[in-house]
Amino acid sequence: MAIRFEVLEKDIAGRLGRLRVGDKTVHTPALFPVVNPHLPLIPAAEIREMGAEAIITNAYIFATSGRFREPALGQGLHRVLGFDGVIMTDSGAFQQSVYGDVEITNRETLSFQRAVGSEILVPLDIATPPQADRRRAESDLGITLERIREAGEMVGWENLAAPVQGGRFPDLRERAGKAVSETGAGFCPIGGVVPFMEAYRYRELVEIVLAAKRGLSPAACVHLFGAGHPSMLPLAVAMGCDVFDSAAYALFAREGRYLTPSGSLALGEMTELACPCGACRGRTAEELGEDPGHEALLARHNLAVTLSEMARIREAIREGTLWELVDDRCRSHPRLLDGYRALLGHGGELERDDRASKRRFFYRGGESCLRTEVHRHHRLIPRVPLGGRVLVTFTGKALPGFDTVLLFKPPFGPYPAELAETFPIGQSEIPSWDPEMVARGCAGIRAMMVSHPGVSFTILCEPEWGDIARTGLPGAEVRVEPL
Amino acid sequence: MAIRFEVLEKDIAGRLGRLRVGDKTVHTPALFPVVNPHLPLIPAAEIREMGAEAIITNAYIFATSGRFREPALGQGLHRVLGFDGVIMTDSGAFQQSVYGDVEITNRETLSFQRAVGSEILVPLDIATPPQADRRRAESDLGITLERIREAGEMVGWENLAAPVQGGRFPDLRERAGKAVSETGAGFCPIGGVVPFMEAYRYRELVEIVLAAKRGLSPAACVHLFGAGHPSMLPLAVAMGCDVFDSAAYALFAREGRYLTPSGSLALGEMTELACPCGACRGRTAEELGEDPGHEALLARHNLAVTLSEMARIREAIREGTLWELVDDRCRSHPRLLDGYRALLGHGGELERDDRASKRRFFYRGGESCLRTEVHRHHRLIPRVPLGGRVLVTFTGKALPGFDTVLLFKPPFGPYPAELAETFPIGQSEIPSWDPEMVARGCAGIRAMMVSHPGVSFTILCEPEWGDIARTGLPGAEVRVEPL
Repeated sequence: MAIRFEVLEKDIAGRLGRLRVGDKTVHTPALFPVVNPHLPLIPAAEIREMGAEAIITNAYIFATSGRFREPALGQGLHRVLGFDGVIMTDSGAFQQSVYGDVEITNRETLSFQRAVGSEILVPLDIATPPQADRRRAESDLGITLERIREAGEMVGWENLAAPVQGGRFPDLRERAGKAVSETGAGFCPIGGVVPFMEAYRYRELVEIVLAAKRGLSPAACVHLFGAGHPSMLPLAVAMGCDVFDSAAYALFAREGRYLTPSGSLALGEMTELACPCGACRGRTAEELGEDPGHEALLARHNLAVTLSEMARIREAIREGTLWELVDDRCRSHPRLLDGYRALLGHGGELERDDRASKRRFFYRGGESCLRTEVHRHHRLIPRVPLGGRVLVTFTGKALPGFDTVLLFKPPFGPYPAELAETFPIGQSEIPSWDPEMVARGCAGIRAMMVSHPGVSFTILCEPEWGDIARTGLPGAEVRVEPL
Repeated sequence: MAIRFEVLEKDIAGRLGRLRVGDKTVHTPALFPVVNPHLPLIPAAEIREMGAEAIITNAYIFATSGRFREPALGQGLHRVLGFDGVIMTDSGAFQQSVYGDVEITNRETLSFQRAVGSEILVPLDIATPPQADRRRAESDLGITLERIREAGEMVGWENLAAPVQGGRFPDLRERAGKAVSETGAGFCPIGGVVPFMEAYRYRELVEIVLAAKRGLSPAACVHLFGAGHPSMLPLAVAMGCDVFDSAAYALFAREGRYLTPSGSLALGEMTELACPCGACRGRTAEELGEDPGHEALLARHNLAVTLSEMARIREAIREGTLWELVDDRCRSHPRLLDGYRALLGHGGELERDDRASKRRFFYRGGESCLRTEVHRHHRLIPRVPLGGRVLVTFTGKALPGFDTVLLFKPPFGPYPAELAETFPIGQSEIPSWDPEMVARGCAGIRAMMVSHPGVSFTILCEPEWGDIARTGLPGAEVRVEPL
């Protein structure tokens, strides 16, 4: 029942994949709903019907439960929970990070996880808190790596999840990713990130996750441990995370909170339920809140919304429209926007792995200027052969006396007429030009000028773009022509 | 059964309202699904169950139908369609605009509409096409106004919809709005806009609708005739439209197209259905497409999504978060972004009618700098009394020797500490500062400087904002201080 992971399609650093565990298949990016046997708001069998191919439960809770320990050891987790998909078990590391200590060792939890039939086993890693200094983070990381090695020797590598730790330090995260991949583990959770998400520190989260990914093998299936609020899933997938686990659907339901892909709301402050799911349909917020089964109803809504969001993300990767979904979701909270902008700051490095052709490029605001497709155009367009005198025409009009005439489409920049139908020029839709996108397009001209130092460049543009062209293109002649 | 309209809450120019027709109530903004008796994809009774309080059907189709004319005249529309909510009837004007002519007169259609028990009657107005010149638009408008007067005299004003025409000319639209409101009609469709929406000419649509609204009485219930694609509803509501009618749910279903709040997709190009509605749940796109009842299923999904979006819009107005919903939806297509930017271009005029306090202000990108709340801050902040020497501190640090110290929060600008908890300063959430929002905040300082010509202004800021402050605030002293 070894774990195998296959990448079928890519978009940004996100992957559409197949995670195989024995003869079972999980389509990634995937959500593993958290199932707590003591608080079963939705039976695991119904979670399966709702579309979840895997769940995660907590070995520590089972191991220490007077009620569930023996049945789990006797019948196995799948029978006790009534779930025939993939079951992953957490080790107790989360409890350890919250309570400071747990009464279980690394060997004990692994031995228990194996005995109850877990299909993805997690060692007792150390989740370094964000405020910990580098020394502590390094020491915690050393223990985690030691425990991963111990785990591999004990239960084998085939079904082991090997967590990446390193606290808030990108270089430690990268080193941890590398070390974990060198063990040969193919399923790698990025751990210790919950406090960052709880405090909306998305900018740091992006730096940490990208660093871990730089260290990890591209073949590894990457789990972002503890991430499950729908609003941040597209961002996380865009960075290359494949698996998520969420207790949010149930925890939020118990607090009377209603999940949406753009944030969560207090049911008590709502009036109408703008959702066509079975729990919401035909009910007002008040009616839902007063239903005796309101917690379970709310949990069903929350889970349905989160699973829908995963499906939407998979669909976006198939289409090549993940940037647009990330842009959409990340504007729902200013701190997520910070995280998105941090991701865009790595556009040049993400471009190398992004796919070459997509369904479309829709400009959605200034942030779109920094998408990978724009970086790629600026990297590749200098390869176009040029004569000694080049005209870049913003207006479409050509002038006599030039060896090469290039057209111009912001935010990409210059292109020869032969590329008018190819991606991204031909498949991009932009609004009326604005200064930001024109300036970014000029950066594309600049890239060309830099790689053709002997060539003279003339820009033909409408009066409103003259200043931007002159400022952005020192050394070019700018001819302004009224429409 | 007279029509009355009551506005309960406002956001931007959008209104949460109650439209009463006799003893029936429609909660606005509302969608009136279009029901065609010849192509009933969803029975009207089920449309009612799905949450629609009103529908619109076509009197011309009934009047010219061998099958439905007599039953409608004998039993009335409500019995024939099996719908106990509000029924509005179109006159045949749409057919006239598509086919050039119809075999019915204004008096005939009104007489028929009255006879079949319509509760909102529409005269045979002339929808001027966008390409028509001013002379034609003026002449069409004259005929429309004449027919409205004829209609009022014939069936009374109480249940009459009085359409606003005027083609692509904002001044004609404004004049038409005024003329229509002067008749006393309280239900006013803005007509002739479908070709603009079909061609994604949202920028012009915004100018036309805002012009019509300037002419119309604020007490009128405003119907945007033919608008029903969910992606443009928040924009239309933000301009002050209250009622929409949609055949899109059914027309798109017949073409195999799947509606979402951010656009429509071809079912044949989809894999997963990221929607928890009854039609989608448990089905793949392929399974839905191969179902013998796929047209009806798709119509149910499309209608459920559109009705959900209306509920979401009403909820946003209650919360005061409509700008955020508009921002979200309008980024889904670059031409909608053009329309949104056109709306923001009227921010100063919209501000006068916007409400004073909202749940929150979430910054969602550069466009947020032009929201009404920022305009209002810049209009009101100059009223704060100032001493002769004013310090505006970006860093929070005060310096000695000033009579007044103001804090600074972009994109709003300067504020005294006493306003730190009030809207929008206290309820706004912004990402890490960016140049655009800081420049916009400086415009707030400039507004203060203009209205206090004898006062000296000093700005204390971090080095990265020094250039923006110096450029934006000629006449102020800018002191740059490292963090």
